[in-house]
Amino acid sequence: MKDVRTILDQNAFSFERLDAGDAPLRTLVQQRLSTVGPMAMLFYEQPLHIVRGQGCWLYTADGERYLDVYNNVPALGHAHPKVAEAVYQQMRMLNVHTRYLHEGIHRYIERLLATLPASLDRLVMTCTGSESNDLALRLVRQWTGKQGIIVTDGAYHGNTSAVTEVSPSAYKRGAPPDYVYQIPFTELAQQADPAAWFAQQVERGIDELEQRGYGCAALLVDTIFSSDGVFADPVGFLQPAVQRLHARGALFIADEVQPGFGRTGDALWGFLRHGLEPDVVTMGKPMGNGFPVAAVAAREELFARLNREVGYFNTFGGSTAAVAAATAVLDVLEQEQLIEHARRVGGELKHGLQQLQTTHPEIGAVRGAGLFLGLDLVDAGGEPDAARTTAVINALRQHGVLIGAAGKFGNTLKIRPPLCFGSDETAFFLQRLERALGVSGAGH
Amino acid sequence: MKDVRTILDQNAFSFERLDAGDAPLRTLVQQRLSTVGPMAMLFYEQPLHIVRGQGCWLYTADGERYLDVYNNVPALGHAHPKVAEAVYQQMRMLNVHTRYLHEGIHRYIERLLATLPASLDRLVMTCTGSESNDLALRLVRQWTGKQGIIVTDGAYHGNTSAVTEVSPSAYKRGAPPDYVYQIPFTELAQQADPAAWFAQQVERGIDELEQRGYGCAALLVDTIFSSDGVFADPVGFLQPAVQRLHARGALFIADEVQPGFGRTGDALWGFLRHGLEPDVVTMGKPMGNGFPVAAVAAREELFARLNREVGYFNTFGGSTAAVAAATAVLDVLEQEQLIEHARRVGGELKHGLQQLQTTHPEIGAVRGAGLFLGLDLVDAGGEPDAARTTAVINALRQHGVLIGAAGKFGNTLKIRPPLCFGSDETAFFLQRLERALGVSGAGH
Repeated sequence: MKDVRTILDQNAFSFERLDAGDAPLRTLVQQRLSTVGPMAMLFYEQPLHIVRGQGCWLYTADGERYLDVYNNVPALGHAHPKVAEAVYQQMRMLNVHTRYLHEGIHRYIERLLATLPASLDRLVMTCTGSESNDLALRLVRQWTGKQGIIVTDGAYHGNTSAVTEVSPSAYKRGAPPDYVYQIPFTELAQQADPAAWFAQQVERGIDELEQRGYGCAALLVDTIFSSDGVFADPVGFLQPAVQRLHARGALFIADEVQPGFGRTGDALWGFLRHGLEPDVVTMGKPMGNGFPVAAVAAREELFARLNREVGYFNTFGGSTAAVAAATAVLDVLEQEQLIEHARRVGGELKHGLQQLQTTHPEIGAVRGAGLFLGLDLVDAGGEPDAARTTAVINALRQHGVLIGAAGKFGNTLKIRPPLCFGSDETAFFLQRLERALGVSGAGH
Repeated sequence: MKDVRTILDQNAFSFERLDAGDAPLRTLVQQRLSTVGPMAMLFYEQPLHIVRGQGCWLYTADGERYLDVYNNVPALGHAHPKVAEAVYQQMRMLNVHTRYLHEGIHRYIERLLATLPASLDRLVMTCTGSESNDLALRLVRQWTGKQGIIVTDGAYHGNTSAVTEVSPSAYKRGAPPDYVYQIPFTELAQQADPAAWFAQQVERGIDELEQRGYGCAALLVDTIFSSDGVFADPVGFLQPAVQRLHARGALFIADEVQPGFGRTGDALWGFLRHGLEPDVVTMGKPMGNGFPVAAVAAREELFARLNREVGYFNTFGGSTAAVAAATAVLDVLEQEQLIEHARRVGGELKHGLQQLQTTHPEIGAVRGAGLFLGLDLVDAGGEPDAARTTAVINALRQHGVLIGAAGKFGNTLKIRPPLCFGSDETAFFLQRLERALGVSGAGH
């Protein structure tokens, strides 16, 4: 059973295969290599040249259209006119940092704080989820005076030096440093009592980190466990773990970059589904529907403690244009009732996938909440099948559907479309998935 | 002689003084505290409520206008219509990450790489200068296998965990960790041979870092030494230091977040003024005229080495909207010939400040290049005078000019307006500065 490890490379185009595609595509791929270089990463065995987007659909230069079941950043839909208009109007009027007074940022933060537990009473705006998780690490370490962090072993939390170290799935070689304790999260599915098991894991992590001399500052988890393979249930299973953490003086950081802003259909935040009260909440990706904006919410005292030691300023964080984009996103989420929509359509989609499972033994499991679902593909022996998953992803691309993979074993289809995904798109996706499963089964 | 240390707090409004300003202003200040909280930072003894910007001017809600001599992010001028238009058109069409092919990013990177030494042949786009410097640290550490970094003791390079550690000026208490060697940069002004002195300092830093067991990965400097107090001359003074670094297997990171994109008037990049060939170049702030976009350029082999170890992906970095903004900025820089403009107007401005110096003994020095100038304010004994500097900054604010401070001793007026700053603005600024100096002198 292959441990895929680097989710960033799952479903990546292999640049060794420069003969892929037609001549214009090869030229573009060459240009990517000669400009971005070794860190360039393209999706699919045959990369896609996308030139236009609308709603849940992306269009190539050739005029082909693809249903987007992958992109969670444009949560309201691609090229949403209200966000573009809000950014444009603000950029024509004023786009400055937060060291002048401006009402927009106060209105926005008040609105966002009202959706969080009352104890989370302050919010600092950054540009990216990575910057938010980086700041969160500093907040919890300064508060506790400890260095150790507990994460799941398939976790991905972002790209800065500090955040990469708590992202086991980002490592191609080696492993996170000694102050990171990794919970073997894939074992969760085998547990009769997942909540008790997770709490025991956290307890063990704290013990271990104390023995190693670091102590435990926090548990940091994505509350839908996206890169671990999408685990939404059982509802509340994190509660005992968070109680243990608090009892032992450690904090809980809820990374809402993936589940946040209504994707799970049950609440605006993934941790609310689980009835949790985090010490720090980080958010990003869909917050500006593609405009770079992110944030960290925490108790005032945590920000105050760090602020005594170092100055923190984020040039673009909370700029007037970023606030305009983020405000438009909240407006549209409310106006189009997208959380309720995600719950309803996500339910239809999950039901459809479960139906498909009854006739397709290669579907090992269907998990998730709202419009964030995971579908495991397994081999005849029921073991994770990353090769089949890659084949299905590429077959879906040929059949007009864009999707990606997740999970420590690379065998989970990650289903995470823009929230405007409707019943028609659900039917289209299910039909094409069935076709792709057939193809991959035949060729497997 | 007070060491101000935290440049982030220089010229900050003191939130203890909540009685400042009129009632509407007090309400806004209270809202800032109750939303952003302890990390909120506002400029001036009386914070400003800005609602509109155009060119080099910012406008308050009351209709008052202020000449902007501070903001380098909107380098083309506030609310530049061509950037807003480019972002809008792209956001209406498509705004996605770099894992699909899109021609814009190749065209942009090719254009940018053509402005850099040929050895810097690849460029990775990020969102912020902080993210860029964070990635640069990982590149040089992975390449050299060493941890130590040499910086100047007044340096500021950004806000992530790793980058804060190489930013002595961000510390309010304590100091950077042991693997950071700080060059006592303020001594430069006293040196007969600044180039030889700086090279000796670097040599000493490498020795010291080796003795401490870290080795030296790189020298990281802002090539206009903005937060050190703006030091542009003598041209070429960094050359011997970079030779020493390379001779000893260490690298040179040019942080172009401040001097980049033509601000110095002599070249697009600060390091080009000095005839240097860096191993890594980081850029940010003005790159998108306010749209969050930044980048790291380096040799392909450096990216390849890091890429073997970990995956790096930046969700918003190089998105189609970010590329549209950045492309529009390069277009306008060329069309409006802003580098040449910065050289010419910056020359006029520097000359005017030097004239003022002849009649104002409190002006200790005038330094800089193009539209990035520093003006030291000193007391009767010629010592740095941070209190006077704060007084002048706030007097200028009363006289309709927005400016900030820099330098380890907080006594340098940092003159860094949008690049569209013209002769009229120069005359206005010189007149108001003379008035503010008189006021501050009287009250001092």
